[in-house]
Amino acid sequence: MEHRIKVDETHLIHASQLDVPPRLLLGPGPSNVDARVLQALAMPEIGHLDPRFIELMNEIQELLRYVWQTDNTMTIPMSGTGSAAMEATLANSVEPGDIVLVGVNGYFGERLCDMASRYGADVRRIEKAWGEVFSLEEIADALKMHRPAILGLIHGETSTGAMQPMEGIGKLCREFNALLLLDTVTSLGGAPVFLDHWHVDLAYSGSQKCISCPPGIAPFTMSKRAVEKLKRRKTKVASWYLDVNLVAKYWGSERTYHHTAPINMNYALREALRIIAEEGLEDRWERHRANAERLYEGLQELGIECHVAKEYRLPSLTTALVPDGIDSKAVSSYLLRKFNIEIAAGLGQLAGKVWRIGLMGFNSRRENVKLLLSALSEALEAAG
Amino acid sequence: MEHRIKVDETHLIHASQLDVPPRLLLGPGPSNVDARVLQALAMPEIGHLDPRFIELMNEIQELLRYVWQTDNTMTIPMSGTGSAAMEATLANSVEPGDIVLVGVNGYFGERLCDMASRYGADVRRIEKAWGEVFSLEEIADALKMHRPAILGLIHGETSTGAMQPMEGIGKLCREFNALLLLDTVTSLGGAPVFLDHWHVDLAYSGSQKCISCPPGIAPFTMSKRAVEKLKRRKTKVASWYLDVNLVAKYWGSERTYHHTAPINMNYALREALRIIAEEGLEDRWERHRANAERLYEGLQELGIECHVAKEYRLPSLTTALVPDGIDSKAVSSYLLRKFNIEIAAGLGQLAGKVWRIGLMGFNSRRENVKLLLSALSEALEAAG
Repeated sequence: MEHRIKVDETHLIHASQLDVPPRLLLGPGPSNVDARVLQALAMPEIGHLDPRFIELMNEIQELLRYVWQTDNTMTIPMSGTGSAAMEATLANSVEPGDIVLVGVNGYFGERLCDMASRYGADVRRIEKAWGEVFSLEEIADALKMHRPAILGLIHGETSTGAMQPMEGIGKLCREFNALLLLDTVTSLGGAPVFLDHWHVDLAYSGSQKCISCPPGIAPFTMSKRAVEKLKRRKTKVASWYLDVNLVAKYWGSERTYHHTAPINMNYALREALRIIAEEGLEDRWERHRANAERLYEGLQELGIECHVAKEYRLPSLTTALVPDGIDSKAVSSYLLRKFNIEIAAGLGQLAGKVWRIGLMGFNSRRENVKLLLSALSEALEAAG
Repeated sequence: MEHRIKVDETHLIHASQLDVPPRLLLGPGPSNVDARVLQALAMPEIGHLDPRFIELMNEIQELLRYVWQTDNTMTIPMSGTGSAAMEATLANSVEPGDIVLVGVNGYFGERLCDMASRYGADVRRIEKAWGEVFSLEEIADALKMHRPAILGLIHGETSTGAMQPMEGIGKLCREFNALLLLDTVTSLGGAPVFLDHWHVDLAYSGSQKCISCPPGIAPFTMSKRAVEKLKRRKTKVASWYLDVNLVAKYWGSERTYHHTAPINMNYALREALRIIAEEGLEDRWERHRANAERLYEGLQELGIECHVAKEYRLPSLTTALVPDGIDSKAVSSYLLRKFNIEIAAGLGQLAGKVWRIGLMGFNSRRENVKLLLSALSEALEAAG
């Protein structure tokens, strides 16, 4: 009988009461959140089919539409992190053999290629150096050459701090009968995003950047055109968890159980979206822009240049070039150790060459810029 | 220019401050959690590569090994709900053409079949009526007939309330060179689970049942044999998000970024596991057993029979047969409306025939049994 087996206590450790250092998170996310969001997160659970929860779901969907500036019915939070929502866009739209053209100018473009190929796509790439963006002509030429079913672009490249100009791209995609897929992980809530005006068909984001909610839930949206491609599929979506045909039955009018929604993460997301609605998108974008400007000026005074040309900078995430002779890691360690400030190292092509400094959502504040610049000045002296 | 577009306020709703009804969740999950878990959930974020977070990750892994009674190195929380961890077991272990034999005696066995087929498995089924379990002979015969690469079983069927006896099955799987995959969603933390003793190779669970943590993070484990099958794969795992080759680089010694871990959900899971460690597995299992017995007795006094034979009942989830002439939905609505108590309806073959009553983790308490029985008695009179 099972209960006669002796319980093994090898792995029975005595973990202390949870305490965490009071970090100021000025890296690429997660970012700090408003206390209201943490309070909402800690509200008691209700069931995932509770009439009250269904009201909350509707509110979340509606506020996501506002933040994204879209009328898409299929606008929901995916029950995972931003990477899960990223995969969901491809899992639902790619059928084996589909040509997927990806603009690769950083780490997340690379990831789109990897994900698309796993779902059987014929992946084509257009490339730019990390930190640059694509011109409309370059995109037009690539669409003409590859005739893709889907064009995937990164709006705000978290690895480089560059923001892709979007005017005109969506219209081109319609002409070439391609769906436009856009990563808005680091831009949504921190920089102008006009999903419908740009004719974007598939988009995703994270909760822990400019939305200012903890990580673990991820905005996802599909246009009618993208839903039509999904309906025309001849093969099942390989991922059951991310299959919008199934997920839509829970988030739509049927309310059929698919998986148990992450209840408390939905509470937190709703509160974070309420805060955005209270501030208003335009004011929020302007706040991000103004604090980014303050950061650029302060960095310049410290003799630090930005990696990205001014007109293409993502206001929420700045890549600052590490001055010659400075050990980038020594500086970021100093900031963490002495001041509880987290900034991040460069990734890939930019490893060791830049710091990545985030001023996202709740954290895009004048006082944070002030503190960071002052602490950075000390850290540079210590490392110099 | 993008900022010249006018912001559309169609979807700008004014949502009220979050309030949720004080539900007693006695359905199949989510279940209520200890206030300590909600407090941990609301602690401020730190980065997913913060030295402190890495300590917490190690503690979570170790406590999961204790709860599962396994030495598996690859024991982690997946960044999604139980269904994501369920899919992860198949996504990593199934290669196209692999024979996957599934024991189907309820809703979640059906789901395993669906998921496995999406990853290209040649799915074979052994079936039993919903509420029954498989004998060792039936499993031996099926292994002999189908020679599967993987045998998938549900330990605690949340749709039926039946618990599959596990003695001997793992040894048989080794003889037939099959991996043993086990769903422990509703049993882990509430009933004896001895993963290594049972020779289980792949297992998953949910956080929101007997672990008593909110939903949104999901225990996942793989034995050495399962990891070896993963290493031998000729094809990439189709899901990038769930690919253990990548996830392991973050949860293993490399600490390479894969996706941003759901920080606060990890805090909550750690606290929930700490509470289990403080109580001790044997006392916790005994508590679940004793409160289930109290429920069975009280139901009998109300003239309500249990659907599952006594020896195969899952202590955390009871399927109670709806008496003739009673509208099952009217009763559960009455409980919710009058007493804020959530119980669930039957699924699939058992729709309309049973109520599903959960006494899980924190909620497996004498006072909850008392209240439910008393409220149910009133609801039956009102519905009769």
